[in-house]
Amino acid sequence: MKRALFYLITLSILTLGLTQCGSNTKETGKPYSIVDNAIVFDEPERIEGQKSVLQFSVDPIDTVRIGFIGLGMRGPDAVNRMTYIKGVEVKALCDLFPERVENVQKNVLEKKSLPRAAEYSGEEGWKELCQRDDIDLVYICTDWKNHVPMAVYAMQHGKHVAVEVPAATSIEECWQLVDVAEQTQRHCMMLENCCYDFFEMTCLNMAQHGLFGEVIHGEGAYIHNLEPFWEYYQGNWRLAFNQEHSGDVYATHGLGPVCQVLDIHRGDRMEYLVSMSTPSINGKKLAKKMMNVDTFANGDMTTTLIKTNKGKTILLEHNVYTPRPYNRLYQLTGTEGFANKYPIEGFTLKGENLPEGMVPDHEKLDYHDWVPQHIKDSLLTVYKHPIVAEIEELAKEVGGHGGMDFIMDYRLIYCLQNGLPLDQDVYDAAEWSCIGELSAASIENNGMPVKMPDFTRGDWKKVDGFQLATKK
Amino acid sequence: MKRALFYLITLSILTLGLTQCGSNTKETGKPYSIVDNAIVFDEPERIEGQKSVLQFSVDPIDTVRIGFIGLGMRGPDAVNRMTYIKGVEVKALCDLFPERVENVQKNVLEKKSLPRAAEYSGEEGWKELCQRDDIDLVYICTDWKNHVPMAVYAMQHGKHVAVEVPAATSIEECWQLVDVAEQTQRHCMMLENCCYDFFEMTCLNMAQHGLFGEVIHGEGAYIHNLEPFWEYYQGNWRLAFNQEHSGDVYATHGLGPVCQVLDIHRGDRMEYLVSMSTPSINGKKLAKKMMNVDTFANGDMTTTLIKTNKGKTILLEHNVYTPRPYNRLYQLTGTEGFANKYPIEGFTLKGENLPEGMVPDHEKLDYHDWVPQHIKDSLLTVYKHPIVAEIEELAKEVGGHGGMDFIMDYRLIYCLQNGLPLDQDVYDAAEWSCIGELSAASIENNGMPVKMPDFTRGDWKKVDGFQLATKK
Repeated sequence: MKRALFYLITLSILTLGLTQCGSNTKETGKPYSIVDNAIVFDEPERIEGQKSVLQFSVDPIDTVRIGFIGLGMRGPDAVNRMTYIKGVEVKALCDLFPERVENVQKNVLEKKSLPRAAEYSGEEGWKELCQRDDIDLVYICTDWKNHVPMAVYAMQHGKHVAVEVPAATSIEECWQLVDVAEQTQRHCMMLENCCYDFFEMTCLNMAQHGLFGEVIHGEGAYIHNLEPFWEYYQGNWRLAFNQEHSGDVYATHGLGPVCQVLDIHRGDRMEYLVSMSTPSINGKKLAKKMMNVDTFANGDMTTTLIKTNKGKTILLEHNVYTPRPYNRLYQLTGTEGFANKYPIEGFTLKGENLPEGMVPDHEKLDYHDWVPQHIKDSLLTVYKHPIVAEIEELAKEVGGHGGMDFIMDYRLIYCLQNGLPLDQDVYDAAEWSCIGELSAASIENNGMPVKMPDFTRGDWKKVDGFQLATKK
Repeated sequence: MKRALFYLITLSILTLGLTQCGSNTKETGKPYSIVDNAIVFDEPERIEGQKSVLQFSVDPIDTVRIGFIGLGMRGPDAVNRMTYIKGVEVKALCDLFPERVENVQKNVLEKKSLPRAAEYSGEEGWKELCQRDDIDLVYICTDWKNHVPMAVYAMQHGKHVAVEVPAATSIEECWQLVDVAEQTQRHCMMLENCCYDFFEMTCLNMAQHGLFGEVIHGEGAYIHNLEPFWEYYQGNWRLAFNQEHSGDVYATHGLGPVCQVLDIHRGDRMEYLVSMSTPSINGKKLAKKMMNVDTFANGDMTTTLIKTNKGKTILLEHNVYTPRPYNRLYQLTGTEGFANKYPIEGFTLKGENLPEGMVPDHEKLDYHDWVPQHIKDSLLTVYKHPIVAEIEELAKEVGGHGGMDFIMDYRLIYCLQNGLPLDQDVYDAAEWSCIGELSAASIENNGMPVKMPDFTRGDWKKVDGFQLATKK
């Protein structure tokens, strides 16, 4: 009897310890538990036969044969850009609507006297495209929710994948991408074009040359009043997604270029984040108008802080609802220098002598010690990224957000043709995309810290610094 | 026996519930407990006879007689500014060093043919000054650690108090200020000059006229590379303070003007914050050089997010160590408009028609839809705060950070002379100053949310909106 009671006490204590001080996923009904005052998402084990694709490369592909899925908003321009790159064949085109396919056949391929591509349309067309055996790369420009199913199917059919941002919309989807890439040993690159913008590329180069000292803090954002654009998303998919999801659902443009500078999963990793959101006011009005619903999950402005293993910090902002100038922030704070992209591009560098008249005076706080114009101009020239220098002229001619989209496509093909690791791997895709659900979990729990999954499963220290691979 | 065991089980469960899932201050050795995954600081009860000073005013003081304490960095200019205001008498001057007192007698009072003030110096001089019976207001410009002891002593000797930022350096000190002001029924205004800067005053006025719609997010900062200034702080007090304290130790310049727009403790209140900090690299080097110590608590860059009761968010940044242009951010995001102070002042307003050529184009993301210069100029003229318009010319002549210090002093005296509530009350002083210790607690606990104390003890809803009082 006494022994039974002893067990009962022990059991009670243990049970209580678990239920009160932490929680597990079965109890919360959520994909996370609360452990030591932090939110922890479940992390699946690597299954047998599956192996890391860190620094992954395949044999050179001389002619890269591409199948495109999604020819609504971003797709047609992607096809067009690819026609400017040598050693590329546009093999197949797919969209829900056949008229969109025809539009690209006519206005892109025919115009450049290129052979017509195989055509697919309808709900299942993309599967047929993926099943072809004459395609190396599937390039996906659909709505967000189709990214993972299509990318996974393409990899499982032996194709490499390039997929628009965000690559995945949940933690579970992030793991799917990683696991399938590891299982199939295929490339899966998220098309984060902002990493290839001119100023970002120059700053990356300056950072890697040590001009900012140690970069300790980075900022990124997607601040873009989408009011004039909402109606252009097929079936209202974007607003419908935001209507259902809180958090920073579109973090990759701001986060990507900062992660490259901070060597994320190439020596450092993002450890945890906290996030806060304002109420939805404008979002709610939009939802009423366009969807005739009264609720809207996504706050008008969402702010997220991330801490890395080395103790560095990243600030992310998301706001697509209120009148503000377009802004991706892109700001680097280093021990010896500073770079800022919006609203004016500029640098501050410790090494520079202060310009004449810029003497310390605590009564005169309005001076800005940006380097003067001629020094800024010199920096932009001297530290132009060699990869940009190589392709800049053509990039500006072809266009795509001023040229950065073309540089991205060019790099993707260059690396495939030369058997090199891609600039952005599947771990980047997962790390940059996972912010959506992680930030939502923090917001839902009043700013509680959320541990970030380690999609490399412990390998994040194995590569020493981020590099854009080039042939020797 | 069974009943005894039942009690034992119950007791075990209760004890475990307390010790495992939360913690109290005795166990942590900290001034806070952890409750429901958040940090909660102890909040003292209001003692008997002590009553709220919300919207507090005293009978008009026709001639405001002032005693100044601290004549090192900010003090001499404060005395000088006050000599420009009618109905002010500089009654007494105090500093640790008699030569500093003499300097002000000679270079400020004598120069303007004003009577010499009573003189105090040495370690205890300030107490004697506070004990005088011909002083209405004690104006404190000393190092941070002396603010509260001096302010408390002055109030206890019947004086109103104006005290430099931050008014207090810990939560315990914040409560001391609030409690003593409530016990003695005296004014205690923190000298947050940035609330009186021209752009901030205009934006406050625009916000109160509804031009930004509902302001849902505000940003503020103190980003100021203090490298050239560290040696000017008497006995190295500022670096020594930072060497011992992590967190945003100087939040008030960034926070004050945002709180006024958001009606903090005039209908809304700050509920909780989270904070992250980078490692100390430059700070550590400074500490080695100037103090010959190897540790430095304050991270080079600290970022804090605050959530209000109405769900609004505030971003705060602190960085006094790395090369960056001076920046207080001061940014307001509203449902219908946007204001931004650094690095360029500008507005975006929903009501404005987009200027010609600024048509939606998702390929052309580099346009900035700031209102054009002529509209901005009109806004700055039409919405100039009436209080600024009244005194602007003289303010710019007298100076003090371009005039804002003078507007602050002018308002303080105006309100005292007219028997009005001051613009900034003791609750503002406590709320804006408490960020230091609260953010440190969040940083120490890996970004855990920290509940913000309610210094008004439940009265924050009683006043409907922030106003600068004027006589009828």
